[in-house]
Amino acid sequence: MSNYIGVDLGGTKILTAVAGSDGEITAREKQPTEASKGTDTVMDNVEDTINKVMEKAELQKADIKNIGVGSPGPLNTKEGIIYESANFPWENVPFVKLLEEKTGLPVKLENDANAAALGETLFGAGRDVDHLIYITISTGIGSGIIINRKIYHGMNDGAGEAGHMIIEPDGPLCGCGKYGCLEALASGTAIGRMGQAVVNLGHSQIMEQLSNGNLNKIDAHLVARAAYKGDKYARNIYKKAGYYLGIGFANLVSLFNPEMLVLGGGVMKAEELFMDSMRTSLEERAIPSSLKNMKICRAELGSDTGVKGAVAVAMRE
Amino acid sequence: MSNYIGVDLGGTKILTAVAGSDGEITAREKQPTEASKGTDTVMDNVEDTINKVMEKAELQKADIKNIGVGSPGPLNTKEGIIYESANFPWENVPFVKLLEEKTGLPVKLENDANAAALGETLFGAGRDVDHLIYITISTGIGSGIIINRKIYHGMNDGAGEAGHMIIEPDGPLCGCGKYGCLEALASGTAIGRMGQAVVNLGHSQIMEQLSNGNLNKIDAHLVARAAYKGDKYARNIYKKAGYYLGIGFANLVSLFNPEMLVLGGGVMKAEELFMDSMRTSLEERAIPSSLKNMKICRAELGSDTGVKGAVAVAMRE
Repeated sequence: MSNYIGVDLGGTKILTAVAGSDGEITAREKQPTEASKGTDTVMDNVEDTINKVMEKAELQKADIKNIGVGSPGPLNTKEGIIYESANFPWENVPFVKLLEEKTGLPVKLENDANAAALGETLFGAGRDVDHLIYITISTGIGSGIIINRKIYHGMNDGAGEAGHMIIEPDGPLCGCGKYGCLEALASGTAIGRMGQAVVNLGHSQIMEQLSNGNLNKIDAHLVARAAYKGDKYARNIYKKAGYYLGIGFANLVSLFNPEMLVLGGGVMKAEELFMDSMRTSLEERAIPSSLKNMKICRAELGSDTGVKGAVAVAMRE
Repeated sequence: MSNYIGVDLGGTKILTAVAGSDGEITAREKQPTEASKGTDTVMDNVEDTINKVMEKAELQKADIKNIGVGSPGPLNTKEGIIYESANFPWENVPFVKLLEEKTGLPVKLENDANAAALGETLFGAGRDVDHLIYITISTGIGSGIIINRKIYHGMNDGAGEAGHMIIEPDGPLCGCGKYGCLEALASGTAIGRMGQAVVNLGHSQIMEQLSNGNLNKIDAHLVARAAYKGDKYARNIYKKAGYYLGIGFANLVSLFNPEMLVLGGGVMKAEELFMDSMRTSLEERAIPSSLKNMKICRAELGSDTGVKGAVAVAMRE
């Protein structure tokens, strides 16, 4: 069996693993990214995790076929360049070239949402389907589009930005600078912001207590805790997020007619707070014949989504 | 050179042509569809146009490689069935089987917007690109998505319904039964309806005169005539439609990162009334790095879009 290395390059940590062609991880290694120390340190840290996982798995370089890397973007998969990253002081880093020089192995770079989508396709919820869309609902909303079991990149790696689909043109401002993106309406950040607004208006004693009156402490997780305690404001915030997710997903159904939506990300931990309202608006808004046989699944790879996605990139792209 | 037959099966007329593999039409034939007379008559009429174009082009059946058919949907391209059609009293017609029996030639069926998209890709504005989206702005708004120079169908031929993307969840009711679809905001029908609303409120003397006070006469064409006469209400209606088109296109950019948008359909005849506002909202709303190198082009095939699209289907699908 061939062996592949997957590197999940995050803003705070690097998670690296060796896996066989079945995607089963045989060794793993985690290290801080130390992004603030600059490119050289990050590259050294990545190399270090690679050497360590090979050692743990008792493999030599000759045993490794490819290294796959999932990283926040924007980046260029063909040229192997990371343009920039919210979490790194990086600009136009020729990541693939640098890592290939360090390791002597072929390196393939992919943005993290696309890598996760491919990981779910090869090893997770999407094993048996050709066309799926993976959506991660977290601080932001990211997505990866799989067509014929391959990542669809578009012209210049810009495809699959479902979080920046505009579904309420006069809606709230998004981190991207536009108004009414799905991410501005239904991400973890949006849910937290709605919680802050409610507390600011003096409406939710439960959220106010949980935050000790500190608005900055109100995030999606706190709103969920309040909702579980019965706070009707918190419950409505999640319902509203679900309503918008349903509209966004209806648009994906109209455009892609996918076989499956795979939902991941931290906000899914509170799924019972918003999946009903999501389904209601999806069913009201989507084209019935396209919705009929479409499955909606939870991401299956859990905390390994990033690293298994990177392994999938090593194998397939 | 191989020869192909394309059949543009419309609600009122059948336009059939023979073309070489360069897409150049060597003979054409038009007949009424006579949809109200039922399936047998329509199939006979289709067969008749095919025999006549072969005669005109002095070709035998042995000279024809394939027949491509573009038809309103919903339909099933794999099984060759037209499920239904707004313009036909049809239900689950096994069109491909019937036409293959009649002609003895292989028949390929495609929905009309997808066929037009493929026609523009092979013979029109999209000759040099891999990924494009064709959008027809007409009574409704239809679209066809081309990925790697092929039609993207999705799971069950439901992909590419850009007209039913929801971009104003509390917006006007669409013909599909949902609220706030792009089609309900920016199609010819939507433009006509906005014109009627203005006249109904007593605001536009120009539109009232042009329609002789008959609200039912107010359609997109009449609103355009009023706009050209300087009617500020009519001009604003087109501007508003352009605003929504720009948002819809921004969403297509976020999701597909296409190389090109190709715009066709009757409403494009009044393009100078809405393209500026479309571009303004597109530029405000789209992801800049994806928009940067994307081209926006007029459809090039004009009144031959349908039939050349059908020829493209014969050649490629």
